[in-house]
Amino acid sequence: MSAFSRFTPLIQSLPATIPFVGPEAIERQRGRRVAARIGANESGFGPAPSVLLAMQAAAGETWKYADPENYDLKQALAAHLGVPAANVAIGEGIDSLLGQIVRLVIEPGAPVVTSLGGYPTFNYHVAGHGGRLVTVPYAADREDLEGLLAAVKRENAPLVYFANPDNPMGSWWSADRVVDFAADLPETTLLILDEAYSETAPPESVPPVESLIDRPNVIRTRTFSKAYGLAGARVGYALATAGTAQAFDKIRNHFGMNRVGVAAAIAALADQAYLTDVTRRITNSRDRIAAIARDNGLAPLASATNFVAVDCGRDAGYARAIVERLMSDHGVFIRMPGVAPLNRCIRISAGPDAEMDLLAASLPAILESLN
Amino acid sequence: MSAFSRFTPLIQSLPATIPFVGPEAIERQRGRRVAARIGANESGFGPAPSVLLAMQAAAGETWKYADPENYDLKQALAAHLGVPAANVAIGEGIDSLLGQIVRLVIEPGAPVVTSLGGYPTFNYHVAGHGGRLVTVPYAADREDLEGLLAAVKRENAPLVYFANPDNPMGSWWSADRVVDFAADLPETTLLILDEAYSETAPPESVPPVESLIDRPNVIRTRTFSKAYGLAGARVGYALATAGTAQAFDKIRNHFGMNRVGVAAAIAALADQAYLTDVTRRITNSRDRIAAIARDNGLAPLASATNFVAVDCGRDAGYARAIVERLMSDHGVFIRMPGVAPLNRCIRISAGPDAEMDLLAASLPAILESLN
Repeated sequence: MSAFSRFTPLIQSLPATIPFVGPEAIERQRGRRVAARIGANESGFGPAPSVLLAMQAAAGETWKYADPENYDLKQALAAHLGVPAANVAIGEGIDSLLGQIVRLVIEPGAPVVTSLGGYPTFNYHVAGHGGRLVTVPYAADREDLEGLLAAVKRENAPLVYFANPDNPMGSWWSADRVVDFAADLPETTLLILDEAYSETAPPESVPPVESLIDRPNVIRTRTFSKAYGLAGARVGYALATAGTAQAFDKIRNHFGMNRVGVAAAIAALADQAYLTDVTRRITNSRDRIAAIARDNGLAPLASATNFVAVDCGRDAGYARAIVERLMSDHGVFIRMPGVAPLNRCIRISAGPDAEMDLLAASLPAILESLN
Repeated sequence: MSAFSRFTPLIQSLPATIPFVGPEAIERQRGRRVAARIGANESGFGPAPSVLLAMQAAAGETWKYADPENYDLKQALAAHLGVPAANVAIGEGIDSLLGQIVRLVIEPGAPVVTSLGGYPTFNYHVAGHGGRLVTVPYAADREDLEGLLAAVKRENAPLVYFANPDNPMGSWWSADRVVDFAADLPETTLLILDEAYSETAPPESVPPVESLIDRPNVIRTRTFSKAYGLAGARVGYALATAGTAQAFDKIRNHFGMNRVGVAAAIAALADQAYLTDVTRRITNSRDRIAAIARDNGLAPLASATNFVAVDCGRDAGYARAIVERLMSDHGVFIRMPGVAPLNRCIRISAGPDAEMDLLAASLPAILESLN
């Protein structure tokens, strides 16, 4: 397969890869439809009905580029969060924002600290910019704040990634501990505080906006993909000092936002009643997943996210067999953490009753056949 | 405004900028609504009714991420173009693909050849990756193929950008000349052949797919933003050898596509009857713009795009005054080329009759007041 001969040395060193295989690809590989899509931490509860109406209304304007300043969405977020709009940056999902942040900070060879088994897409972006990953093992299934801090200082790292609540384990730290962690970092280390799952977290685990907004070395990332049910819309945002937030304007794809997606995000933010309702349903579904796990002799971990990590009590091969068989035998799509010791677990996203019913019906036979 | 202190030196050297000020920003600045949105080469004719139906149907699935392999869209494009799907790469509009291509090829200081006055967003991406722009003046309002080739060879440039048809002038070269240009390039120079406007171009100006598909150093970029009327959907694609196309998989945002936007693109591709109809309407609108220009003593340039560059016969200040006054006095949003000698022109996008009527009604008074 002939390719252009003069890609940069960094590019030539990279594999053509994909951080996650999507459920559609799994369907094509297996020749089997996904019957329960509870593997990608999407929200099967969907967005609010008001959001679907807003999308319908916006569809007629899809011939127009979105406003490159994302003015209306920034204003809405600013009002919602109680910060000036200048503290907000908009991007095509957190994934895009993560890629941009890495590009802002990392030159080839620079150390980047993250947890061993943390978000693979972040690692993908670090590799893509030639950064050198420095990983810190989880401690008791939580990201190890002391370990992360020590690694940052040891390496003089310009960038550290920390998700609270955590993916893939669903664990969390208190707001106070997070704020202390940020305060303890050198000013020359940028903290990405990934809060993709903040809407489903206990309030006392989410630092108040004002507690970190004045720190130039902190960027908090959030998304409409999870609790708001808009993964396909690709709308994320970052909270930072105005000066740090402005850096995105140096490299972002100004006309990159989908117009209908932006309209959906604005409508979603306006419908906080739906968010309250859906987070309750997500909480109930988490409880249901935990109950199903226990009924099957598995150990659910406490979760502050829209998924539950379930300790299957054996090695990665066992967990992988459960993941594989759930899909191949029953069309139940779930995922699992990628590295030890997290990969003794499977990870199941919250979802509507029908999906939970199928999970409950499928799991016993799978486990029995694997014993 | 305090910002993080350790962004890379390249990032610190870049301005926070925007390649184009959007019409929404102009509305906010002027406190006046855009009445005729004919400045951003969008299509006021909109997408096909069948596309709007497809978007409505897909809205209910917006809680799902799009397929990161973009399988269905790739298959549809492959069938439409008569190439294997492996020759197709998908991106969030051509802008995103351009940024990725620059990143694939350009290290700081590397020379990049383009036309003086060519697409500003490409230049933005080159600057963003530290490339050194080498510009070649237009010749008789067309991109100068001989000049571009000479600059490539003189600089040993790894990357050259060439739009056919051209933006902002609307001019074009024959397919034969384009193919010859590609063949004359060193194999170590990657050609971006930007064909954003290929659907509205004379067929004899668009090289057949097979004429360039085997060249590892050619990437053709196309979009659903122009004739297909889906600027807000952010769906573009690249055609290249399978090896070159695969390079995007090393750095792209795999989950970056908007799910409703992808559904819209697939539906748009399937409705070629609408494309035939709308390109006829675009052609008629081009003729109308030309007629309005002539009626006002201005000189329209021939166009193969969905816009017309109009030579106002004086300097940039005069053209700029027309652009400014059309908006401030009448809410008519148009744009103009950024550099001499192109900036003696204004650039008007094709659009529905109401927009053309407003243009026709507004222009005489503006010109009279400026004389």
